[in-house]
Amino acid sequence: MAGNRSKLAELRRRQAEIASEIAQLEAPVSPFAPERFPALPPVEGVRLSSAAAGVRYPNRTDVMLAELAAGSVIAGTFTRSETRSAPVLWCQERIAALAARRANKKLAIVVNSGNANAFTGRHGREAVEAVMAATGRVLGVPAGNVLMASTGVIGEPLAAERVTARLEELAAGLSAGGLEGAARAIMTTDTFPKGAGAVIDIDGVPVTISGFAKGSGMIAPDMATMLVFIFTDAAIEQRVLQAAVSELTDRSFNSITVDSDTSTSDTLLVGATGKAGMVPIASRRDPRYRAFHEALGGVMRDLAIQVVKDGEGASKLIAITVTGAKSDRAARKIGLAIANSPLVKTAIAGEDPNWGRVVMAVGKSGEAADRDRLSISFGDIVVAENGRVAPSYSEEVGAAYMKRPELEIGVDVGVGAGRATVWTCDLTHRYIEINADYRS
Amino acid sequence: MAGNRSKLAELRRRQAEIASEIAQLEAPVSPFAPERFPALPPVEGVRLSSAAAGVRYPNRTDVMLAELAAGSVIAGTFTRSETRSAPVLWCQERIAALAARRANKKLAIVVNSGNANAFTGRHGREAVEAVMAATGRVLGVPAGNVLMASTGVIGEPLAAERVTARLEELAAGLSAGGLEGAARAIMTTDTFPKGAGAVIDIDGVPVTISGFAKGSGMIAPDMATMLVFIFTDAAIEQRVLQAAVSELTDRSFNSITVDSDTSTSDTLLVGATGKAGMVPIASRRDPRYRAFHEALGGVMRDLAIQVVKDGEGASKLIAITVTGAKSDRAARKIGLAIANSPLVKTAIAGEDPNWGRVVMAVGKSGEAADRDRLSISFGDIVVAENGRVAPSYSEEVGAAYMKRPELEIGVDVGVGAGRATVWTCDLTHRYIEINADYRS
Repeated sequence: MAGNRSKLAELRRRQAEIASEIAQLEAPVSPFAPERFPALPPVEGVRLSSAAAGVRYPNRTDVMLAELAAGSVIAGTFTRSETRSAPVLWCQERIAALAARRANKKLAIVVNSGNANAFTGRHGREAVEAVMAATGRVLGVPAGNVLMASTGVIGEPLAAERVTARLEELAAGLSAGGLEGAARAIMTTDTFPKGAGAVIDIDGVPVTISGFAKGSGMIAPDMATMLVFIFTDAAIEQRVLQAAVSELTDRSFNSITVDSDTSTSDTLLVGATGKAGMVPIASRRDPRYRAFHEALGGVMRDLAIQVVKDGEGASKLIAITVTGAKSDRAARKIGLAIANSPLVKTAIAGEDPNWGRVVMAVGKSGEAADRDRLSISFGDIVVAENGRVAPSYSEEVGAAYMKRPELEIGVDVGVGAGRATVWTCDLTHRYIEINADYRS
Repeated sequence: MAGNRSKLAELRRRQAEIASEIAQLEAPVSPFAPERFPALPPVEGVRLSSAAAGVRYPNRTDVMLAELAAGSVIAGTFTRSETRSAPVLWCQERIAALAARRANKKLAIVVNSGNANAFTGRHGREAVEAVMAATGRVLGVPAGNVLMASTGVIGEPLAAERVTARLEELAAGLSAGGLEGAARAIMTTDTFPKGAGAVIDIDGVPVTISGFAKGSGMIAPDMATMLVFIFTDAAIEQRVLQAAVSELTDRSFNSITVDSDTSTSDTLLVGATGKAGMVPIASRRDPRYRAFHEALGGVMRDLAIQVVKDGEGASKLIAITVTGAKSDRAARKIGLAIANSPLVKTAIAGEDPNWGRVVMAVGKSGEAADRDRLSISFGDIVVAENGRVAPSYSEEVGAAYMKRPELEIGVDVGVGAGRATVWTCDLTHRYIEINADYRS
């Protein structure tokens, strides 16, 4: 036993050394990272720029400015956290106020990475107000037309003056092509910038949607936060845009999970400039609404899946589709119970077709399921049906399927017509390395 | 880059080899394992035995039988999983039926490890009924007086005949001192058997409570399941015992978490033989109820904490006490949000006093919290107060505290008088090794 103990200690020491070597060597890039940022179409009425303000990180851009033409409308969804950040509270206030009356002046969005401005008390609110006022002066708009988002360390005061010192430079640098620069400036420990866009035809009018997101990288003690900014030249009334965004958030950003932890800063803003030259969409019953809704949904889903693909330590992307639930909402809850289960996620990391853990996760969701009608599939492989393992299923076939980088798990719970798809990644040693082994 | 890639592949290969060597060498014992099983007082009217039935594991005991004297009453709480196992469904039925009328005959409990008899369809029910009928014949009691619990693999049919083949041997081996043997027979990948007991004085009558539990070990594709059996010679009416057990479960087994996954098999049974020689406790207003309730609560909490200490890969035990919540229930929900957060658990594994992640977890719980009155402490160290970091706090003091094996996190959310304590362990590489790296 004593011999084993010293041998074990030696092995543990070597293991730590190797982990440290790997961390240093490893180009910390998700296996799903695309070769390059997509060529996003510029959106008429939107200009962006980015700069290096040294909020926390040296030698990189960490602040971005977006300017939207006068007459634009803006909609948003936010973290439901009870400890949400000062910028989130500001945005929620301002979006409600801006929705109530049409703005004749331009709108702007300022975003910094490196500091979340969360759990910073009164100082946090003052920092937001200082940046908003300064941005308003520089752009010649009321401070209330400026929105803010912040991502990074929690609990440290944001040095607002580092951001305001760059505002003249940011305003001078505004350009229609600034999307990639802006996407890079808001990254924290994301391993690639995330962008998605679409150009669609709405009743003969070409309409552009372009957006970018950050999320799911993190360094202790930073939080994984999700920020998403999407712009379109569609003409649409604010309350119709808000309705579309709220509904589509449930099917995209509220249907993904990396580690079940919700940040204090999650912010999605969608701005519409109305420059496409169309009569505004004023109702969800407008026949043009469906085409816009579908295209916006596609962009949001694309960005959401990119966030999962950049999840800490992710080696697998998993799409979980739940059918036969009491309602779509119940289906999503069951899907998230599976997606958040550490036992399911570690099994997938180990390429183990462990369908028993899927059964467990369905059971713990708290939603109705018929134990005797439950069926489970991996891709096209029927694993279980009618509440027990399928006669045709073999472990070998299941194990071969699990070696793929992108997996589909299907679950039918046999009680209704509710349906939802959620996306997650696996839980690997790399997740522990990122979040436990290396203190900043 | 290509050089780095091949070097990385080599390092990853060596890492896997070392992990495998460690797994083989490692005496897989929790650092919190006690030197020996506690000397539990026998309970008058209860006899136990165990045997090796070869349900799944060779060369070990894997089935236990408990016999309770005629006139005993039994109470229980169970998993709320929608996919609960055949034995759980049987127990829920039988406990309701037995509560409705006083049993004149003995009661019995049969437990097997190695197979959970969950997701086994009609066959699962038949296997339970076969074991119950055979046990009834051997002990001379109705099959309906026999309860069952099973733990182990999900989705495989239970070979009932392996259990029934041992019933004569089990009946012959029944003895008042069989507690430790029974505790060992129900282990799956627990690293130590878990027992706790108390002898108290109730109005001059000595009353004994002794119990044992299994939980939180697991091997793919087995489930972490929790089984708990507690016996007492107290005389108490069934509905009063059930009320006590239900209430105390919330403060013990429902206040612990290892990885947020809920099994299909969780079962807690408490049997009271009435042999202590006292007038039965017939009401919660009986002045003797409080002493019994407190002693039973102590035994349940002790067993619950042992389950956490044996959590997969646990290197730290963490007690999280939430105060100032809207209600006790809200406090428990906030505590479990912190206890289940992978970001909090990995930070603790890394001995990182990352209180920002505690703030995040409070926020995501969905329960009311006053951001500007929130306070956080590690042991006696005030980390944050009034919604921001405490002026007296230093990272060095926090980091030194985190090196302890047993940690206390205090959170006051500043909105009410609700209070709860929950227990959890950290999330380590060993958890990933156990659940992802080694397929059975």
